[in-house]
Amino acid sequence: RTSRVTPGLISCPICLDLYSEIIESGRLVVSTKCGHVFCSQCLRDSLTSSQTCPTCRKKLTRSMYHPLYI
Amino acid sequence: RTSRVTPGLISCPICLDLYSEIIESGRLVVSTKCGHVFCSQCLRDSLTSSQTCPTCRKKLTRSMYHPLYI
Ligand SMILES: [Zn+2]
Ligand SMILES: [Zn+2]
Ligand SMILES: [Zn+2]
Ligand SMILES: [Zn+2]
Repeated sequence: RTSRVTPGLISCPICLDLYSEIIESGRLVVSTKCGHVFCSQCLRDSLTSSQTCPTCRKKLTRSMYHPLYI
Repeated sequence: RTSRVTPGLISCPICLDLYSEIIESGRLVVSTKCGHVFCSQCLRDSLTSSQTCPTCRKKLTRSMYHPLYI
Protein backbone atom coordinates (compact mmCIF):
# COMPACT_ATOMS: atom_id res chain seq x y z
CA ARG A 1 0.00 0.00 0.00
CA THR A 2 1.08 3.56 -0.64
CA SER A 3 0.74 6.34 1.90
CA ARG A 4 -2.26 7.98 0.29
CA VAL A 5 -5.01 9.06 2.66
CA THR A 6 -8.01 8.17 0.50
CA PRO A 7 -8.04 4.55 -0.61
CA GLY A 8 -8.94 4.20 -4.27
CA LEU A 9 -7.88 7.72 -5.14
CA ILE A 10 -4.95 7.54 -7.53
CA SER A 11 -1.71 9.42 -7.15
CA CYS A 12 1.93 8.87 -8.10
CA PRO A 13 3.97 7.79 -5.03
CA ILE A 14 7.11 9.38 -6.51
CA CYS A 15 6.03 12.92 -7.46
CA LEU A 16 2.87 12.75 -5.29
CA ASP A 17 0.79 14.30 -8.07
CA LEU A 18 -2.89 13.39 -8.01
CA TYR A 19 -4.64 11.65 -10.87
CA SER A 20 -6.07 14.94 -12.13
CA GLU A 21 -2.67 16.66 -12.15
CA ILE A 22 -1.09 13.73 -13.98
CA ILE A 23 -3.75 13.71 -16.70
CA GLU A 24 -3.92 17.48 -17.09
CA SER A 25 -0.16 17.67 -17.67
CA GLY A 26 -0.33 15.11 -20.46
CA ARG A 27 1.16 12.19 -18.56
CA LEU A 28 -0.43 8.77 -18.24
CA VAL A 29 -1.28 6.80 -15.13
CA VAL A 30 0.51 3.47 -15.51
CA SER A 31 0.42 0.17 -13.65
CA THR A 32 3.21 -2.34 -13.39
CA LYS A 33 2.58 -6.08 -13.68
CA CYS A 34 3.35 -6.27 -9.94
CA GLY A 35 0.35 -3.98 -9.42
CA HIS A 36 1.99 -0.69 -8.50
CA VAL A 37 0.81 2.60 -9.92
CA PHE A 38 2.88 5.62 -11.02
CA CYS A 39 2.77 8.52 -13.44
CA SER A 40 4.39 7.63 -16.75
CA GLN A 41 7.14 10.24 -16.36
CA CYS A 42 8.36 9.10 -12.96
CA LEU A 43 8.36 5.44 -13.95
CA ARG A 44 10.22 6.18 -17.18
CA ASP A 45 12.82 8.21 -15.26
CA SER A 46 13.19 5.49 -12.65
CA LEU A 47 13.73 2.75 -15.26
CA THR A 48 16.69 4.62 -16.74
CA SER A 49 18.59 4.02 -13.51
CA SER A 50 17.12 0.75 -12.26
CA GLN A 51 15.14 -2.07 -13.90
CA THR A 52 13.07 -2.66 -10.78
CA CYS A 53 9.69 -1.48 -9.49
CA PRO A 54 10.23 1.64 -7.32
CA THR A 55 7.68 0.32 -4.81
CA CYS A 56 8.38 -3.41 -4.40
CA ARG A 57 11.75 -3.81 -6.18
CA LYS A 58 10.57 -6.68 -8.38
CA LYS A 59 12.19 -6.90 -11.81
CA LEU A 60 10.57 -4.43 -14.17
CA THR A 61 11.14 -3.77 -17.86
CA ARG A 62 9.25 -1.70 -20.43
CA SER A 63 7.03 -4.57 -21.46
CA MET A 64 5.96 -5.09 -17.85
CA TYR A 65 3.84 -1.99 -17.38
CA HIS A 66 0.86 -0.51 -19.18
CA PRO A 67 -1.34 2.58 -19.10
CA LEU A 68 -4.33 2.43 -16.80
CA TYR A 69 -7.56 3.74 -18.31
CA ILE A 70 -9.51 4.93 -15.33
CA ARG B 1 -13.10 5.96 -19.80
CA THR B 2 -15.76 4.54 -17.54
CA SER B 3 -18.85 6.41 -16.45
CA ARG B 4 -17.52 7.29 -13.02
CA VAL B 5 -18.12 10.83 -11.87
CA THR B 6 -14.80 11.40 -10.09
CA PRO B 7 -11.76 10.72 -12.26
CA GLY B 8 -9.16 8.71 -10.42
CA LEU B 9 -11.63 7.22 -7.99
CA ILE B 10 -11.74 3.48 -8.55
CA SER B 11 -14.89 1.44 -9.04
CA CYS B 12 -15.86 -1.72 -10.91
CA PRO B 13 -17.75 -0.85 -14.14
CA ILE B 14 -19.66 -4.14 -13.96
CA CYS B 15 -21.05 -4.24 -10.40
CA LEU B 16 -20.48 -0.48 -9.87
CA ASP B 17 -19.02 -1.14 -6.40
CA LEU B 18 -16.55 1.46 -5.18
CA TYR B 19 -12.98 0.64 -4.22
CA SER B 20 -13.87 0.57 -0.53
CA GLU B 21 -16.78 -1.83 -1.04
CA ILE B 22 -14.62 -4.12 -3.18
CA ILE B 23 -11.84 -4.28 -0.58
CA GLU B 24 -14.14 -4.60 2.43
CA SER B 25 -15.87 -7.60 0.85
CA GLY B 26 -12.58 -9.41 0.33
CA ARG B 27 -12.32 -8.93 -3.42
CA LEU B 28 -9.32 -7.47 -5.22
CA VAL B 29 -9.16 -4.53 -7.59
CA VAL B 30 -7.58 -5.91 -10.76
CA SER B 31 -6.23 -4.36 -13.95
CA THR B 32 -6.07 -5.98 -17.34
CA LYS B 33 -3.04 -5.60 -19.61
CA CYS B 34 -5.25 -3.42 -21.84
CA GLY B 35 -5.55 -1.08 -18.84
CA HIS B 36 -9.12 -1.67 -17.71
CA VAL B 37 -10.04 -2.02 -14.06
CA PHE B 38 -12.59 -4.38 -12.45
CA CYS B 39 -13.26 -6.17 -9.21
CA SER B 40 -11.77 -9.65 -9.21
CA GLN B 41 -15.15 -11.36 -8.92
CA CYS B 42 -16.76 -9.67 -11.91
CA LEU B 43 -13.73 -10.24 -14.12
CA ARG B 44 -13.51 -13.90 -13.11
CA ASP B 45 -17.23 -14.37 -13.84
CA SER B 46 -16.89 -12.62 -17.17
CA LEU B 47 -13.95 -14.78 -18.27
CA THR B 48 -15.95 -17.96 -17.79
CA SER B 49 -18.20 -16.91 -20.67
CA SER B 50 -15.84 -14.85 -22.85
CA GLN B 51 -12.05 -14.56 -23.12
CA THR B 52 -12.22 -10.84 -23.87
CA CYS B 53 -11.98 -7.64 -21.83
CA PRO B 54 -15.52 -6.55 -20.82
CA THR B 55 -14.62 -2.93 -21.58
CA CYS B 56 -12.64 -2.96 -24.83
CA ARG B 57 -13.18 -6.55 -26.07
CA LYS B 58 -9.47 -7.22 -26.57
CA LYS B 59 -8.36 -10.82 -26.02
CA LEU B 60 -7.98 -11.52 -22.33
CA THR B 61 -6.80 -14.62 -20.50
CA ARG B 62 -5.95 -15.28 -16.86
CA SER B 63 -2.29 -14.37 -17.33
CA MET B 64 -3.25 -10.98 -18.76
CA TYR B 65 -4.54 -9.33 -15.62
CA HIS B 66 -3.14 -8.65 -12.18
CA PRO B 67 -4.16 -7.20 -8.82
CA LEU B 68 -3.74 -3.48 -8.43
CA TYR B 69 -2.21 -2.41 -5.11
CA ILE B 70 -3.62 1.02 -4.56
ZN1 LIG C 1 5.07 10.83 -10.83
ZN1 LIG D 1 5.91 -3.35 -7.76
ZN1 LIG E 1 -17.38 -5.93 -9.90
ZN1 LIG F 1 -9.66 -3.71 -22.02
